[in-house]
Amino acid sequence: MHFADRLAVGLRRTRSPLMVGLDPRVGSLPAGLLPVDESPGEIAAAFRQFCCGVIDAVCDVVAVVKPQLAFFEQYGPPGIKALGEVIRHARSKGLLVVLDGKRNDIGSTAEAYAAAYLGAESVWQGDALTVSPYLGDDSLIPFWERARATDSGIFVLVKTSNPGGGFFQDLRTPDAALYQRVAAHVEDLAAQSIGDCGYGIAGAVVGATYPRQLTELRQQMPHAWLLVPGYGAQGGKAEDLRSAFDDSGYGAIVNSSRGIIFAHDREPYRARFGASRWQDAVAAAANDASEELGAVAGLR
Amino acid sequence: MHFADRLAVGLRRTRSPLMVGLDPRVGSLPAGLLPVDESPGEIAAAFRQFCCGVIDAVCDVVAVVKPQLAFFEQYGPPGIKALGEVIRHARSKGLLVVLDGKRNDIGSTAEAYAAAYLGAESVWQGDALTVSPYLGDDSLIPFWERARATDSGIFVLVKTSNPGGGFFQDLRTPDAALYQRVAAHVEDLAAQSIGDCGYGIAGAVVGATYPRQLTELRQQMPHAWLLVPGYGAQGGKAEDLRSAFDDSGYGAIVNSSRGIIFAHDREPYRARFGASRWQDAVAAAANDASEELGAVAGLR
Repeated sequence: MHFADRLAVGLRRTRSPLMVGLDPRVGSLPAGLLPVDESPGEIAAAFRQFCCGVIDAVCDVVAVVKPQLAFFEQYGPPGIKALGEVIRHARSKGLLVVLDGKRNDIGSTAEAYAAAYLGAESVWQGDALTVSPYLGDDSLIPFWERARATDSGIFVLVKTSNPGGGFFQDLRTPDAALYQRVAAHVEDLAAQSIGDCGYGIAGAVVGATYPRQLTELRQQMPHAWLLVPGYGAQGGKAEDLRSAFDDSGYGAIVNSSRGIIFAHDREPYRARFGASRWQDAVAAAANDASEELGAVAGLR
Repeated sequence: MHFADRLAVGLRRTRSPLMVGLDPRVGSLPAGLLPVDESPGEIAAAFRQFCCGVIDAVCDVVAVVKPQLAFFEQYGPPGIKALGEVIRHARSKGLLVVLDGKRNDIGSTAEAYAAAYLGAESVWQGDALTVSPYLGDDSLIPFWERARATDSGIFVLVKTSNPGGGFFQDLRTPDAALYQRVAAHVEDLAAQSIGDCGYGIAGAVVGATYPRQLTELRQQMPHAWLLVPGYGAQGGKAEDLRSAFDDSGYGAIVNSSRGIIFAHDREPYRARFGASRWQDAVAAAANDASEELGAVAGLR
């Protein structure tokens, strides 16, 4: 099924646009899952156990997870192997997997990244991949074409959630800000690849920390799914996200990482569950965020 | 030793600014190294053998190699494991290793990438990493700080060699083109981290296919090493690169990938050596390119 339609079906089924970011960090793991030593193999094993446990806790509540590749790459081949196992586990639970690698390159190198990460037949089996636009329009085409051929998708960085995101993205060009120029290109790619739900396979990363731009970019890219980081731990609020959704409740998936996966160490979940019941804390946090975001989206 | 000084020492020793790009592709391997089947494990083993063979053939002629991560990631955990072995082999031969991953992210995620790839103590042991600037100034700081702390370096994408590189990079902003704004930031980071050779740990990727901009950017970033792709197979000519070098012959490393590593299949080396003597073809191509580029740089 077309990637955009699989997203829509997932949101309809769970009545939630929440995407859970899998960003494992040694210092934040529940006490029972700490690696026995600091070797990459032990840390990777702990990451695998933790992320698979998160997936088990959230797979009935959300439709999408987003592994952050950096945290796995940091531990070398064992980390990368754990990433593969986490992806397979997520897929076995029926979750869509957005790989957050922010890859980008040109020509046959871009084709190699696309072949690596996009689609069920690829070695990494991503349903989608985040990509960076700086290298230009011809650098995005190989990803978009591979996504079209494999019923997968891409999310292009447009307006990112970090404080310095505007340093280059907000620069004025003759017609518009840089991020609006990137958005126009994403909309082109999306409009050429729409599924039954009205959205295309090219989406855009637009931070929850910039509500005004989120509204504006939703209008500028009517055919692009938005991947919205910055909700929760980074300060973005649910009510500011209403404009990201269409009348059917589609159009955006909202990421939360730390706020969900390390809920055992955050109130109110720490007091209710603590480290020993960390999966219950994860499930409760995902459920609460899904209720909040599902209501804002109009999915419930 | 400071990364910029290690580059200078390497260029002085080899009298060559040539960097050999390690971009293995199944369809281009010499006949004797073809994988026995198309499984990731067999392809990864062939890549390891091929890249280590290239390293053996060029290690007396050049100072720097640049593995392209995409080609290894494409074959999953076995590919990634082969990448680690190729890096270790290059280091054992005294080569500097620039990892071409074009990574980028924000905050602690950028720190994770930096920790993964930069410095002898990191799991991937890169002497330098290519990074993409779209996410803004605060996304580059974690890489730059890690590079400072570990005597390694970064190369920020500024003006790339692909035909569509200008699609966003050439957009006019109030003061300058976007790529010039990125260059100004790279120069800031470089000027704050200079070694004995006068260059800093932050460098810039500037394509050989845009000679006018190469001259201009060399002047705009007097403290930044330039990583120059596009020479050879992509059409950039040695004589167009003269302005990239300073009076000591320093200031730029010039990448060639296909033109060197697949020389067995390119004239005049194919006729002289053929697939059976592919390492001799690689050595001869590297030697010829080093002579040409070394003369242009003023290193010989």
